This record gives sequence, C-alpha cells and structure tokens, in this order.
Amino acid sequence: MIRVVAKGKLKQGVKLEEYLTLARELVTETNKEEGCISYALHEDINDPTIVTMIEKWVDEEAIEQHNCSEHVRKIVPELRKLRESTEINLYREIK
Amino acid sequence: MIRVVAKGKLKQGVKLEEYLTLARELVTETNKEEGCISYALHEDINDPTIVTMIEKWVDEEAIEQHNCSEHVRKIVPELRKLRESTEINLYREIK
Repeated sequence: MIRVVAKGKLKQGVKLEEYLTLARELVTETNKEEGCISYALHEDINDPTIVTMIEKWVDEEAIEQHNCSEHVRKIVPELRKLRESTEINLYREIK
Repeated sequence: MIRVVAKGKLKQGVKLEEYLTLARELVTETNKEEGCISYALHEDINDPTIVTMIEKWVDEEAIEQHNCSEHVRKIVPELRKLRESTEINLYREIK
C-alpha cells in the first residue's frame, strides 16, 4: 500500500471554489479507479491557500495507471495552473 | 475529523533505525489515546531521509490532549534533535 501526500499552494487571487470545481471531478473519477483505496482533497485549517490531496493506493502500478488516466490528463494540468507550488511525496508505512 | 501530516527530514548522518527506536514507542502509546483514529510513521519511497507521521484525530481537542501527553513530552523533543526540519499541516477534508 502506498500513501501519497500532494501538497499544493494556491496562486494569489485564486478562489478556493474555482479550484474545487475542477478538483471535485478529479476526486469523483479517481475514487472509481480499481487501485485507488482513498483519494480526498483537504484544506489546511490554518491556511486556506494550502490544498492537499491525501491518497491511498494498492501499489505503485495503480498510481502509474492513475497518472495515465483520461481524467488526470484532462484536469491535473488545469489545477496546476491555479497553484503556485506543489510538493508530492510517496510513502510506505514503517511498521 | 482532523488529519495531520508531520513531515520531517533527518539530519545528515542520522540512521533511520536510531529514529525508529524512539518513534515506534511514540506510535504505540499514541494509538492508545482515545481521540486518536490512526497515527503511523511513513518513509518516503524515493528519499529515506524523509520520515512523516500521517495522523487522523477525532477533533482538535484530541490533538491538544496528545500534545500534553507524557509520551509526547518525553519522546518528541528527542526526535526533533534528529531532524533537520519539520513541516506540520492540520487538514480538514473538503467534501
């Protein structure tokens, strides 16, 4: 199981609602993917300009398939235009 | 429900096992806390110097109680000495 934390900072002037309209479609479509355990957008409770996707995947192959999906190709570039920065980490739990 | 991502970067020369010996005790004790839904340490699959706690709490009050707990007071300062940097974000899911 792989966890992904994709932390984004919205560009100045970008409204959260504008971002959410796009992001919600990505969340809906991604949660339908077979290898997706969970995929949800979060807002930092202390800084509303930080929007982070916290994800759980069966394995790295599921993530690769996700990255080639139609909804990622269509929506992610548009979301990226609204962000000032993005920090993505792929994690494995340490038991 | 509040999610916390506490991303740490180990200081140069610090061995992961050294960090884990301390961190595992913190994970064990924290998972016993009433307000703790999940609390697990993760390693970045692309950079073993990044160690991140991904947490789920019932509410902010549970986090405040955690921060005042005996195991946090005893262990967290020791872990901090082994890290070069720490980035903590508290998140609420956006539905």
